[in-house]
Amino acid sequence: MRDLAVKLSSILFLLSACSAKAFFKPNEPCKQLVLYYHDILFNGTDVANATSAAATEPTKLGNFKFGKLVVFDDPMTKDNHLLSPPVARAQGFYFYDMKSTYTAWFAFTLIFNSTKQKGTLNIMGADLMTEETRDFSVTGGTGDFFMARGIATIRTDTFQGASYFRLKMDIKLYECY
Amino acid sequence: MRDLAVKLSSILFLLSACSAKAFFKPNEPCKQLVLYYHDILFNGTDVANATSAAATEPTKLGNFKFGKLVVFDDPMTKDNHLLSPPVARAQGFYFYDMKSTYTAWFAFTLIFNSTKQKGTLNIMGADLMTEETRDFSVTGGTGDFFMARGIATIRTDTFQGASYFRLKMDIKLYECY
Amino acid sequence: MRDLAVKLSSILFLLSACSAKAFFKPNEPCKQLVLYYHDILFNGTDVANATSAAATEPTKLGNFKFGKLVVFDDPMTKDNHLLSPPVARAQGFYFYDMKSTYTAWFAFTLIFNSTKQKGTLNIMGADLMTEETRDFSVTGGTGDFFMARGIATIRTDTFQGASYFRLKMDIKLYECY
Repeated sequence: MRDLAVKLSSILFLLSACSAKAFFKPNEPCKQLVLYYHDILFNGTDVANATSAAATEPTKLGNFKFGKLVVFDDPMTKDNHLLSPPVARAQGFYFYDMKSTYTAWFAFTLIFNSTKQKGTLNIMGADLMTEETRDFSVTGGTGDFFMARGIATIRTDTFQGASYFRLKMDIKLYECY
Repeated sequence: MRDLAVKLSSILFLLSACSAKAFFKPNEPCKQLVLYYHDILFNGTDVANATSAAATEPTKLGNFKFGKLVVFDDPMTKDNHLLSPPVARAQGFYFYDMKSTYTAWFAFTLIFNSTKQKGTLNIMGADLMTEETRDFSVTGGTGDFFMARGIATIRTDTFQGASYFRLKMDIKLYECY
Repeated sequence: MRDLAVKLSSILFLLSACSAKAFFKPNEPCKQLVLYYHDILFNGTDVANATSAAATEPTKLGNFKFGKLVVFDDPMTKDNHLLSPPVARAQGFYFYDMKSTYTAWFAFTLIFNSTKQKGTLNIMGADLMTEETRDFSVTGGTGDFFMARGIATIRTDTFQGASYFRLKMDIKLYECY
């Protein structure tokens, strides 16, 4: 009986090691954030307002800006108002990548730096704008989001020509340490 | 004895929580895909055929196109025939990054959108073309590839100057939800 | 009693399956590497020395090189001497992405190719240069770093204008297969 107790406690020890990365529930996120991404593309003169700028010109492959690469430092807000206080910044880039319609590819970091949350989430994925929602991968996190992984679901909230667009991002983390 | 049974069942409960992310077998992929990637670089006139285009010019650092960045929307097929029906698209970019030989760095998304498979795989890594095979990281997945991770092993299947090259990608997922 | 023994061994079997991906200790890395990253930006003439080159010009959004994208193939050394034998290469890119101060965004691969270590680590994240240390995500690994994940903490070791800078990278892997 004591022998069994010893075995059990060693099993429990192994279990605690194993469950160090424990919050893995495929059907239920361990953390969820809904944020709005605001992008104001630099038009050459609006330095004060612009939050992104084209680093390359579109190529001549089709008529949908194929190859145009935009670098951004965009505010992230809790509601869909551009002027709400940002709770994070999104720093990264996107480029257009189809010749027959508008689609883009994104890679960026969400940077949280408030008293409530400090840390980053790193995100990449394809933005198939013709779909109502698109999924990016959250490939890692730091600080309060240490080693996080998950999915960021994107929805176009508004699109005002070349000058401004807004995405709703529903970020669900399925791996949390 | 009942006490032990209780402990055992609580252990089993913990185990089931622990094994929520269960399909982790380092020596055996939980999913495998072999696909061919076809890249036809835009030459300025072949809009109908081209699947990629240079967004930047090569720099003058060496003679191997250092800094030339190419955006692509490339078909992925099950065999090595360019005209086979694509089972996925690869959207992303690569750029050349050595001054003494040809190497490139890739980041892209494989997009599956058929009745058989819907979802994406996000991939990044160094393409050391002088090696027979090179390994990229599959950093995340969405849809049918929800939260996947793995390795994409690349082999140059053919290379026809600047105009066309084909890669064989052997994608092995080691984390599947 | 035999019944219990059977149950215990089946638990142990499940445990071993569960612990296939076992080295997950949030408070203690399973592997640690400290390396120095050396970047010598091409000035148009120093082909022999330069290890990186600008693929795009800065935009006119602010005065901090917003949108300037630099491709690099940089040596990684064990100490902070530029001429120490490299133990790895860092191949990838960074771009500047703020209009009010210097910050950058990085994505790259560390390539190890020695008798001691062969394989790669894929890394991405925001370089908030105004912070003393910044954290990137190690999103995946190959070869000797098969399926690794972790954090790379960056510190600016020296910065000599536009021509040379050196980062200390403290790479801690928390997921090792």
